[in-house]
Amino acid sequence: MTAATDTNSGGERELVLTRLIDAPREKVYRAFTEAELLKQWFAPLPWTITEAELDVRAGGTNRFVMRSPEGELYPNQGVYLEVVPNEKIVVTDAFTEAWKPSEKPFMTAVMTFENEGGKTRYTARALHWSVEDRDAHEKMGFHEGWGQCADQLATLVAKL
Amino acid sequence: MTAATDTNSGGERELVLTRLIDAPREKVYRAFTEAELLKQWFAPLPWTITEAELDVRAGGTNRFVMRSPEGELYPNQGVYLEVVPNEKIVVTDAFTEAWKPSEKPFMTAVMTFENEGGKTRYTARALHWSVEDRDAHEKMGFHEGWGQCADQLATLVAKL
Repeated sequence: MTAATDTNSGGERELVLTRLIDAPREKVYRAFTEAELLKQWFAPLPWTITEAELDVRAGGTNRFVMRSPEGELYPNQGVYLEVVPNEKIVVTDAFTEAWKPSEKPFMTAVMTFENEGGKTRYTARALHWSVEDRDAHEKMGFHEGWGQCADQLATLVAKL
Repeated sequence: MTAATDTNSGGERELVLTRLIDAPREKVYRAFTEAELLKQWFAPLPWTITEAELDVRAGGTNRFVMRSPEGELYPNQGVYLEVVPNEKIVVTDAFTEAWKPSEKPFMTAVMTFENEGGKTRYTARALHWSVEDRDAHEKMGFHEGWGQCADQLATLVAKL
């Protein structure tokens, strides 16, 4: 379903994950921008997404609630910085809404979708404000978690 | 030239400065977005701006160099988050270019220009990620510095 080629080539404050997904990028983009689709893949099972509200435009708010296997709820809120339909989404936790600074800026995620012979080259770059945050993110399981989500994403878009 | 009504009503992480400037907002906006004009008012004299490059669009880079009276140079770099011509400019030092996190996010500045009977209500809000940064900014002379610049701005736009 996916060809895994995770790298960390993007600099010392960056984590990168990339996959070749066997679906056109319009479908991959839908899975990122339609709340009902996002809820189906955006948390690594058995974690789930219980709520999602996505105002997908530069300056729009991104809210979702992640539920642990034990039932604990983790609300997340961020702001889209750049949106190019079917091509690119940039979202950050540095703001909780436009332009209210969050308690602690941790990362900015840059997701790109490139056409590769009818398939989609999906690349997610997590950019951090410090090397410490990058390392903490890696230890929290960035590659496993985002990788598992990318597999769930590929499974979902194959059915769209 | 200007009616001073500085306030700090915007929350514990915010600093606010507002002025009624006797010029239409199109001229005030020009002074923020044309590098040759910005250089004439954006540093509180005897500080000066020696270089300015402004790519005024969401995601565009804002670079300028401030020169102290002793001749020391202080380069600054940020990114515009939102631009509504003649109405609103939002710029942050949380990124040095789109979307590269800076070393230390300190503030996001929201500048608005409202028509008030042919004059311009200029309001600058400096939003910080922590109360400590807000307090440090105030001690650095936010009100005096931004206030002096607002007076220089008013003097400049009266001649446009």
